[in-house]
Amino acid sequence: MKYAVILVSLLLGTPGLGQTSPGTSSGSYDSLPVPLFRKALGSGKAYQILASLMKIGPRLSGSEQAAKATIWGRDVMTSLGFNRVRLQPVMVPHWVRGPLERVEAISGNGKKITLSACALGGSVGTPRGGIVAKVVEIDSWEELKRIGAGVKGKIVFYNRAMDKSLIEPGAAYGGAVDQRTRGAIEAARYGAVGSVIRSVTERSDDVPHTGVMSYDDSIPKIPHAALSMLAADRLHELLRSDPEARLRIELTCKTLPDAESANVIGEITGTEKPEEVVLIGAHLDSWDKGTGAHDDGAGCAHVIEALRLIREMGLRPKRTIRGVLFINEENGLRGGKEYAAKLDPRERHILAIESDAGGFSPQGFGISTDSIRFAKIARWSSLFTPIDADHFTRGGGGVDISPLTHAGIPSAGLNPDTQMYFDYHHSDNDVLSAVNERELELGAAALALLAYLVAQEGL
Amino acid sequence: MKYAVILVSLLLGTPGLGQTSPGTSSGSYDSLPVPLFRKALGSGKAYQILASLMKIGPRLSGSEQAAKATIWGRDVMTSLGFNRVRLQPVMVPHWVRGPLERVEAISGNGKKITLSACALGGSVGTPRGGIVAKVVEIDSWEELKRIGAGVKGKIVFYNRAMDKSLIEPGAAYGGAVDQRTRGAIEAARYGAVGSVIRSVTERSDDVPHTGVMSYDDSIPKIPHAALSMLAADRLHELLRSDPEARLRIELTCKTLPDAESANVIGEITGTEKPEEVVLIGAHLDSWDKGTGAHDDGAGCAHVIEALRLIREMGLRPKRTIRGVLFINEENGLRGGKEYAAKLDPRERHILAIESDAGGFSPQGFGISTDSIRFAKIARWSSLFTPIDADHFTRGGGGVDISPLTHAGIPSAGLNPDTQMYFDYHHSDNDVLSAVNERELELGAAALALLAYLVAQEGL
Repeated sequence: MKYAVILVSLLLGTPGLGQTSPGTSSGSYDSLPVPLFRKALGSGKAYQILASLMKIGPRLSGSEQAAKATIWGRDVMTSLGFNRVRLQPVMVPHWVRGPLERVEAISGNGKKITLSACALGGSVGTPRGGIVAKVVEIDSWEELKRIGAGVKGKIVFYNRAMDKSLIEPGAAYGGAVDQRTRGAIEAARYGAVGSVIRSVTERSDDVPHTGVMSYDDSIPKIPHAALSMLAADRLHELLRSDPEARLRIELTCKTLPDAESANVIGEITGTEKPEEVVLIGAHLDSWDKGTGAHDDGAGCAHVIEALRLIREMGLRPKRTIRGVLFINEENGLRGGKEYAAKLDPRERHILAIESDAGGFSPQGFGISTDSIRFAKIARWSSLFTPIDADHFTRGGGGVDISPLTHAGIPSAGLNPDTQMYFDYHHSDNDVLSAVNERELELGAAALALLAYLVAQEGL
Repeated sequence: MKYAVILVSLLLGTPGLGQTSPGTSSGSYDSLPVPLFRKALGSGKAYQILASLMKIGPRLSGSEQAAKATIWGRDVMTSLGFNRVRLQPVMVPHWVRGPLERVEAISGNGKKITLSACALGGSVGTPRGGIVAKVVEIDSWEELKRIGAGVKGKIVFYNRAMDKSLIEPGAAYGGAVDQRTRGAIEAARYGAVGSVIRSVTERSDDVPHTGVMSYDDSIPKIPHAALSMLAADRLHELLRSDPEARLRIELTCKTLPDAESANVIGEITGTEKPEEVVLIGAHLDSWDKGTGAHDDGAGCAHVIEALRLIREMGLRPKRTIRGVLFINEENGLRGGKEYAAKLDPRERHILAIESDAGGFSPQGFGISTDSIRFAKIARWSSLFTPIDADHFTRGGGGVDISPLTHAGIPSAGLNPDTQMYFDYHHSDNDVLSAVNERELELGAAALALLAYLVAQEGL
């Protein structure tokens, strides 16, 4: 492309904010979006906030870095002049990966092949020296059920890939992640001594992707790990030519006693109806691979920058806009539950919006509420057209705000373009360089705009 | 994000193609898009086509690789069974970078600082040993005019950055690229002996971005090069503290006699009105930095895969859908001009669509035609909603098809998300790994769908 054919005459002709009254209740907000979007892009602040958080590193619940991140969040919100900045204490699970995790294939003739792998979050460790067993490759729950006791004493290898033909990457992820969440339970149910999965990603590299997994207290707890895509390919090939091949798994991960932690909260208190709250949230914890840049450092940057932008634009919302950086989304939801359990009875949450789908270009919002409220929000969608973020669809929210959703509070999720989200998710690929500054800023601006509209107009 | 909340029940319930008649003229195409999109995502073919082209390397007009690329294009189209595959010969400019390009700053005390830089496309070389001169930093044309003869015997350093607050990156690019295209002319007009620019990008790294530049035959031709963003920062800082600093520029680039080359053409000949043509085009040439993955390898993959997809889906368009891989978009437009000059008088082009804005997620199409035809196309936009590519806007096209546009033929451009396009554009950053497979496939599918709709319904 040699020349840009787009001459954004629209932008050049946009009157300054001071010339109109975007904050009035007349319902006319036409002059607000473009200056807001341009302010976000021009400032680069969301990216600076994210870069600052990334210096702390990964922030798994209970870790020293997670503790640092809560202090960081409080200090950033305070320095930006937000109202009522505070920490909301909560106890969180404390799982640690430990120094050693090794998975190797051992062929029939004794040759060893190291496979890039990582323990899944919550897994038990292995005895010192690891476990060694033959491998049964499984592509479906039906196949596992059919083989049944045939996996006894063996290691189950769940090798079902994401269905890349699905348009929504989240649907493809949802169709494969059950191997991670339930795999250890189902394998142990039939007597397996360990289990591994193909990482839940579509990116064909040698980076394993972690994530939460579960046990059932009535069934033995076996170690559960993820292989990189290439390692899963290698193991699959090996088993085709050498069904006697074995796997050695050695993991030093373990669960420690719960640790003290906190949600980080700050707000712009409403000028007219401060007791009505529009919540914008993200989660501060991350997995311990990469630095959680898209998941969910980007969301934290969105929330903080959205509040900063609203103030920077000189807007004074009638209702309270509250930013919450929740702790422990990844492996416990303790932060989200605690927030929902400790609602101030003098307040009323009119909408909770979460950003937890990455720092990519925003496409719109998914909204979970009744049809009347949905219609009220959706009529603002054209205000988001200048940044192509006007896809307002029914259904959406986020894990952290799900306890609020269950309590009947209208919920929404910022929907960025997620076509490449799972390339990064829960892995060493999820670092600052994977986030584009412009796309991140636009997400913050979209979040700011929706929060402000609801804060002005109610719901 | 832990769980995908989106359950794409829509997809699961979509009937197979054979159950309906998407190809009839009834105007009901509702059952076509989702299977088409899923076919594209599931096949991964667009990415394979791009990867294959990338093996040839950069493809500057006149180069050996450009010649290989034309053969590659013809062979790929032939192997895929396209109709009337052919090369359309055309002479193209032949500029070569040469083995040496060096820019260094020399401080007042003689210290030398190497600056990452590259010659701009079409620049003359320097005498052996280079040129050395003091530097005048310029931020606007007004400033240059004011300084006027003050730049005589010196090197002009154009340091105006892209305006990152603009929502459309193309507009920000358009607001800075004049320093590249006109910089040598304007500097030489006042007697400068050379000129350099800040690369036209927003990505702050040490990679210079090339691109085409112009001379005026009535004004001396001076060497013209681009500094990386960091090199421009360094030079700016040096000049603040040391206005006596000089710059040495040594370039071995030169223009050779025009070379033989060709457009690559293949089609699906229409079953009912073969003489009515829907053209889908991209350009096969690239700059000699990186491998032209987004610019415009992605467009070539889009065009080939769009035709392949239409056949793979069993669709038999009534009108001809013709793919054209134009040569020489970057520095001459000879391919586009030749195609427009040699139109078959028995044919009528009803729409020309270009893909030359990168391999990112498609957002829609920009369309240049009268309001009646625009309305006819725009009513199909909802068919593109499943992939969020339903932004159909007025105005659009492409450089290669601009001679057709000028001849009155309706034109359109595929509009992907370009927020990060200029991070890669015309630089060593523009390589295969910068393109996401899923996003590329969706672009091909969007192009296939629009071309097919117009081929069925006419315009």
